[in-house]
Amino acid sequence: MPEVTPQSIGYEVLHADVTCGARLGRLTTPHGVVDLPTFMPVGTVGTVKGVDIARVAETGAQMILGNTYHLALRPGAEVVEKLGGLHAFSGWRGPMLTDSGGFQVFSLAKRVKITEEGATFQSHLDGSPLHLTPEESIRIQEQLGSDIAMQLDHVIALPAKRDAIADAMERSVRWAARCRQAATRVGQSVFAIVQGGLEEDLRRESAERLVELGFAGYAIGGLSVGETMDQMLRTLEATTPALPQDRPRYLMGVGRPEDLLASIERGIDMFDCVMPTRNGRNALAFTDEGPLRLRNECHAADPRPLEEACPCPACQHSRGYLRHLFQAKEMLGPILLSIHNLTYYQRLMAGAREAIAADRFSQYHAEKKAGWSVGRLA
Amino acid sequence: MPEVTPQSIGYEVLHADVTCGARLGRLTTPHGVVDLPTFMPVGTVGTVKGVDIARVAETGAQMILGNTYHLALRPGAEVVEKLGGLHAFSGWRGPMLTDSGGFQVFSLAKRVKITEEGATFQSHLDGSPLHLTPEESIRIQEQLGSDIAMQLDHVIALPAKRDAIADAMERSVRWAARCRQAATRVGQSVFAIVQGGLEEDLRRESAERLVELGFAGYAIGGLSVGETMDQMLRTLEATTPALPQDRPRYLMGVGRPEDLLASIERGIDMFDCVMPTRNGRNALAFTDEGPLRLRNECHAADPRPLEEACPCPACQHSRGYLRHLFQAKEMLGPILLSIHNLTYYQRLMAGAREAIAADRFSQYHAEKKAGWSVGRLA
Repeated sequence: MPEVTPQSIGYEVLHADVTCGARLGRLTTPHGVVDLPTFMPVGTVGTVKGVDIARVAETGAQMILGNTYHLALRPGAEVVEKLGGLHAFSGWRGPMLTDSGGFQVFSLAKRVKITEEGATFQSHLDGSPLHLTPEESIRIQEQLGSDIAMQLDHVIALPAKRDAIADAMERSVRWAARCRQAATRVGQSVFAIVQGGLEEDLRRESAERLVELGFAGYAIGGLSVGETMDQMLRTLEATTPALPQDRPRYLMGVGRPEDLLASIERGIDMFDCVMPTRNGRNALAFTDEGPLRLRNECHAADPRPLEEACPCPACQHSRGYLRHLFQAKEMLGPILLSIHNLTYYQRLMAGAREAIAADRFSQYHAEKKAGWSVGRLA
Repeated sequence: MPEVTPQSIGYEVLHADVTCGARLGRLTTPHGVVDLPTFMPVGTVGTVKGVDIARVAETGAQMILGNTYHLALRPGAEVVEKLGGLHAFSGWRGPMLTDSGGFQVFSLAKRVKITEEGATFQSHLDGSPLHLTPEESIRIQEQLGSDIAMQLDHVIALPAKRDAIADAMERSVRWAARCRQAATRVGQSVFAIVQGGLEEDLRRESAERLVELGFAGYAIGGLSVGETMDQMLRTLEATTPALPQDRPRYLMGVGRPEDLLASIERGIDMFDCVMPTRNGRNALAFTDEGPLRLRNECHAADPRPLEEACPCPACQHSRGYLRHLFQAKEMLGPILLSIHNLTYYQRLMAGAREAIAADRFSQYHAEKKAGWSVGRLA
């Protein structure tokens, strides 16, 4: 008898908001169901930085992301596989997506050389020489055992010449085909990544060619690399109409709360970003009244929690206490603010899903934006 | 109507082990009951380092310790008081003890000058000049609002001349009297601290003179400062017979698991030490088979948890994963090992209480020692 767990992911649009492009959806994976739109906390090297995995689940996260590049360097995919794969290794029992390493090769590695075959580069940790091809990226992701593997893509810095952007986009399409060809793991699906910089026609072309190949889902990559919010949104507007309605859409590496809502409005279903944890470690707390900088003196004797309505462990404490932790350089400061920010992002997504279901996402978006702009940066 | 919460601490011996000096007891405080013997995690500046307060409770801890010296420096006792006292500030709802600052003045402060009036010194943080008298220490501890305040004592480095040890001991007795005189806070009890270095007759004299003054409990201070375990135990053996049976006995700043059991055998009821968290941050895990050094290569692909029987979040992971966290310098390594070690200490104390109740503490102690020495340091 074959196992009855799903062999690959399923996606369903549950409701399309009549006021905008926002979609309420459901992603079914071998490790469980994800309500869309969703935000995936980033578990770079098998840990969401500073937060134990039970607490990650308590924030409301349904799916997390792991990094092929980081894990391949340390501890090595073989070690993760020996220890039962990334689920057993990290202790995360739910759905999981792994990045292909393309973005890290672009952003972290040294002496990178891209050929048609793949990327040759040096580890940012110890300079050791490494080679990553589409096939090798898939092989590593199969060892990690994620539910969704990302294709290896060719990410380039912006601004760049149109020719270079087109070359990288076309190579990414060819690499997408090779990744799909290389994939063998039952229960793991491959997502393609749309590239094309800020060139709207290249984005459309990339999307169309990938859709022609046919993938379980489509990501939009190469954004959040220094462009303005307007440029990013225009790129989304050029891209999403070229993507099929019956596949999930994932905007990689984005972003701030305002980026998430504006992108959901344009039909995006999935996000990941290090911002909640990275900013948390740096004493910045997201709230409905805008971000709070906890190192500021004004919080020293403030008995209020970050947010009255937030159920997270940080909000069991006063702002004065949280500020004190950062002043005293105590680990608990970064820990608690990371948990709060992850919780904030999940609550934002839960609110978005509720709003879409009620055909009032545009109103939700406007209300949130009003709140964020009213609050002065304290 | 007055509140019905107890106005001060109560202590009761529930059972004395017939095989040794170990005592099963119960401490009643305005914030709840503590089963003795107990180990208090150290919440130096209002946080048990790296562990959120709900997790601290989950380790089994019933009482925690806060540091007057650290909190007075940062954020300042006034700020803590404004934010509702140390209970509200830290989020710990249970019984709490505060140290007087005596040990930190000795171990951390710079340019310390002790007179009969008190201690003059410079903050180890910014060199600012400070003055701490017995009365001031009590005043600060009253602002913090702990259940048990410690007297300010005069701690000196060992080895020292007998005259200097005797002087410091006698001053500590006079300061104990001043602390008791200064104490006004309803619901807060003061413990005296026996001093006298390794001079058994001075320890006895210190104990007898403090008992004559009469305190709610008695601590043994000035140990765990570099002496051998044998010297420490001999000092305990000289001291505890001079302390009343009907008061709790607290050995300050001790120590390793083996120190705790050997001290319980000699009639000690309460402990505190930074070792579980400090060692945890340094990748050392306590187990029944002795300590494990998680940075060692041998753990890299080990799928076993630190301890099969341990219910803590760290023991949901493999040793290989925990090692990886330290290799990758991830915060979660120190966090998880701190939680494991705190849990280990609490399980050790729970086992000790069970053994005393069954008159088999000596056997329990022997079994634990055998386990610790069998395990090679891995």
